[in-house]
Amino acid sequence: MKLIRIGDPGHEKPAVLIDEDHFLDVSVTGDFNEEFLASGGLTELPALSRKLLSEGATPQPLAGHRVGAPIARPHQIVCIGLNYADHAAETGAEIPPEPIIFTKSPNTLIGPQDSIRLPRNSVKTDWEVELGIVVGTRAQYLADENEGLLHIAGYMVCNDVSEREFQLERQGQWSKGKSCETFNPAGPWLVTADEVPDPANLTMSLSVNGVTMQNSTTAQMVFKPGFLVYYLSQFMVLEPGDVINTGTPPGVGMGLKPPRYLAEGDVVELTIEGLGAQRQTVVGPR
Amino acid sequence: MKLIRIGDPGHEKPAVLIDEDHFLDVSVTGDFNEEFLASGGLTELPALSRKLLSEGATPQPLAGHRVGAPIARPHQIVCIGLNYADHAAETGAEIPPEPIIFTKSPNTLIGPQDSIRLPRNSVKTDWEVELGIVVGTRAQYLADENEGLLHIAGYMVCNDVSEREFQLERQGQWSKGKSCETFNPAGPWLVTADEVPDPANLTMSLSVNGVTMQNSTTAQMVFKPGFLVYYLSQFMVLEPGDVINTGTPPGVGMGLKPPRYLAEGDVVELTIEGLGAQRQTVVGPR
Repeated sequence: MKLIRIGDPGHEKPAVLIDEDHFLDVSVTGDFNEEFLASGGLTELPALSRKLLSEGATPQPLAGHRVGAPIARPHQIVCIGLNYADHAAETGAEIPPEPIIFTKSPNTLIGPQDSIRLPRNSVKTDWEVELGIVVGTRAQYLADENEGLLHIAGYMVCNDVSEREFQLERQGQWSKGKSCETFNPAGPWLVTADEVPDPANLTMSLSVNGVTMQNSTTAQMVFKPGFLVYYLSQFMVLEPGDVINTGTPPGVGMGLKPPRYLAEGDVVELTIEGLGAQRQTVVGPR
Repeated sequence: MKLIRIGDPGHEKPAVLIDEDHFLDVSVTGDFNEEFLASGGLTELPALSRKLLSEGATPQPLAGHRVGAPIARPHQIVCIGLNYADHAAETGAEIPPEPIIFTKSPNTLIGPQDSIRLPRNSVKTDWEVELGIVVGTRAQYLADENEGLLHIAGYMVCNDVSEREFQLERQGQWSKGKSCETFNPAGPWLVTADEVPDPANLTMSLSVNGVTMQNSTTAQMVFKPGFLVYYLSQFMVLEPGDVINTGTPPGVGMGLKPPRYLAEGDVVELTIEGLGAQRQTVVGPR
């Protein structure tokens, strides 16, 4: 299934995508959040949708509706650094022998077509197309990569927007450059794991003002989705709804010669195979 | 006022401390969480308590009750690194010219007398007594330190438990060693800001098995509470209920010669002037 949330920011209603242009409101199940996942809501969603349709509920056209992030604000957003061999090379870093972990503030999550707002005093705001994992069930001390896969609810497109000066030149702990308002566009949909047979084999790309900047595949990931969930579960307890941004391929602004960062008016478009597309306009600071 | 949460883990009831040994249940107001703070619940709490008492509610004895963290799981826990000049020296690091920011998973928050559980494969689990700030109102792009102080709901004791190998020797982003289960004992109370006239002038100490390890004062902080809230608000949006661990003074296990880390059966006791005391027993891994 494809889960989608429709409506104004903070007032999104949970829905299921019926076809490319129509959604079915499933508000009766509550928002797509930690409680929904923990209580098995995802498992019951196909039957619920069929029931609603059989009772006469009508799919509504997507056109004209704002799309929010496909899940409500999560308990945490964990990110993996330098997880594409070529991206590590581009930034001048070695491939890490084990995953690098950092975090973004959960309130950075926005819809796939919402604007990216430049932070005040930003000179190096950058893009990063990433495969986003949504954790389905509480995970601690998993045994292996295969068990990791079983704890994944689904996948979505994320833009791990990053302010490089804040991230790298302001004392070195990366979260400082990852947590600004609007820095995590997500969606348009959460595609459930059963519909993504091989998450480590999806093409992905990102363009700025129509010029392709990133063009790769999740096959280039150093550490794959199942391994990442297994690995993280050794250091923290993952909660249902937690988001994992799995790293970005080459082509970020920082890696260009000369570097090229986002400016007001720029348009960022990104997509991952089977997970839909995003489009953000960059707006100036508050 | 002193806010306290009483009951089993995950089922705590919000209460107000009436005297050292008694609390008044204020469950009618809802849990002490983001929504409570955002809706002005803290401002209304004194009048609510008086009303409940006048209507015959009886303060109950604390004895025999488990105390939880004084606030529900927050949106985020942000930590400040190397914020005591002497602690920086002890770890061989320079005093940073601006705050170092890292994070802990919000589900690390536990009660002040709960056990600290050693992570699996941990060899360097360490202690850190810290002044914890609880954010009272949404904060973004604050103008200065004074405005920062106005966004603080109150203060509490925190133990910023840290696994040094995970933190420092496993790819260098600190969150990996800060987010293990039970790694943020907090409380026993949240003391509202009006009762803490100078948060940058409180004595603090921590002992392990009765031997004093940390003994300092928040006057040694490089960056003070109001400044920290102001500073963080330039890089992220702080939500009501967000916790800020403001850094630790000298005397952590990593700084001893030879280093000394926590082992099963150790007892950690910590206190900050006016904010109450904690006592944790260290238990083995799951």
